[in-house]
Amino acid sequence: MNTTIETILNHRSIRKFKDQPLTEEQIHTIVKAAQAASTSSFIQAYSIIGVTDQEKKEQLAKFAGGQSYVANTGHFFVFCADLYRHSLLGEFQDVDVLPSIESTEKFMVTIIDAALAAQNAALAAESMGLGICYIGGIRNSLEEVSEILETPDYVVPLFGLTVGVPDQTSSAKPRLPVSAIYHENTYKHDVEWNKNQLEQYDADISSYYENRTNGARKDKWTEQMASMLEKKSRLYMKDFVEKKKLNRL
Amino acid sequence: MNTTIETILNHRSIRKFKDQPLTEEQIHTIVKAAQAASTSSFIQAYSIIGVTDQEKKEQLAKFAGGQSYVANTGHFFVFCADLYRHSLLGEFQDVDVLPSIESTEKFMVTIIDAALAAQNAALAAESMGLGICYIGGIRNSLEEVSEILETPDYVVPLFGLTVGVPDQTSSAKPRLPVSAIYHENTYKHDVEWNKNQLEQYDADISSYYENRTNGARKDKWTEQMASMLEKKSRLYMKDFVEKKKLNRL
Repeated sequence: MNTTIETILNHRSIRKFKDQPLTEEQIHTIVKAAQAASTSSFIQAYSIIGVTDQEKKEQLAKFAGGQSYVANTGHFFVFCADLYRHSLLGEFQDVDVLPSIESTEKFMVTIIDAALAAQNAALAAESMGLGICYIGGIRNSLEEVSEILETPDYVVPLFGLTVGVPDQTSSAKPRLPVSAIYHENTYKHDVEWNKNQLEQYDADISSYYENRTNGARKDKWTEQMASMLEKKSRLYMKDFVEKKKLNRL
Repeated sequence: MNTTIETILNHRSIRKFKDQPLTEEQIHTIVKAAQAASTSSFIQAYSIIGVTDQEKKEQLAKFAGGQSYVANTGHFFVFCADLYRHSLLGEFQDVDVLPSIESTEKFMVTIIDAALAAQNAALAAESMGLGICYIGGIRNSLEEVSEILETPDYVVPLFGLTVGVPDQTSSAKPRLPVSAIYHENTYKHDVEWNKNQLEQYDADISSYYENRTNGARKDKWTEQMASMLEKKSRLYMKDFVEKKKLNRL
């Protein structure tokens, strides 16, 4: 196994960091790594906002659901879907790019672009011995987050990435069985087969929690998911994104 | 610079592969790497379909706009946004998860999850000396692609990833300046400032093409983008995704 694959497999989310800011060089390396990712038809439809202002970081931590490691971290990056510069270049050249930019297709492209870049950033950071955690919690309150970061139309903050020197150890949770995630030639949609896969996985997760907590927790994955998905969270998103002029056509 | 960052920065898309299929072990490593990526609240909302059937590969190559390297490759993976298994676990537990699953928020989550996993897969492959190319072209014809792969409701194929032993060398195109992509604390939306950034970048890209083609090409990025975005491509996407019961609420 090579060191890149080791870094990849060794990933675990870190939620406690030493009080040690990233250096300018580390930040630069992480951003260059992000930019090296593939981008759909070279569109480069994302931006990254590094938040260094402590007050802004604390506001973001609050809006993300009180996650203190957003504010107490080496560096906090926000990855945004971004077609703003494409709207400008359309204006500069007097070409009507808006029907394209406002389409669901291009919204998907911007999200994919931003996520590919972010995962490069995350791995670059981890390869340097830093810890990371994605912060989807900023999507609790995108109106407020957009105001704090002053993002214009055609820009939607997608998630944060908090990066710093780890001040905890953490373990990786077992994933779904490969057989459940990976299909060959055709998607396996048989209900009984899926039920069986989920039952096997529930047993794995349950014994993972049992071992970690000396029997105090025995959660099943399907129960965790059902309980999370029962909550109708962030249903404002469709309107918010459309108001930002994305995902409309 | 460590080897992971070298692998990341050394990325370039490969579109010609030797006639050498990936081994089972390589495929397994790539899928495990994909699964090691972060996933929003542990939701694991994606699937990967490995296409080995030559006829299916040729159909996909055709629907992706005649990209022969979809069929002539070491292995062809299709990454899908996938909330199907979550719809099932809701049924099994008699919990109404559909308003959540059908939301724009969860559609974003599935795309982010799939893209993070894919970028891990791409880097794992590249770290093993393999070449990769993302194939967004499958989104030309998702009706047909879904039929070929037999994907059910709550599943949307997002992009392919073709992986194999490279049979060409290729160069990396210069990205947007770091200053254009990376903002500090607030998004830089000033129009004149953006115009200036784009002009600088156009000059970079233009001289990159000029050097590579002995002066035959001098394309500017803004012209390439305006010309691409002027075409109203894949505007069926909104309806297609909604028909698959995602991005509706």
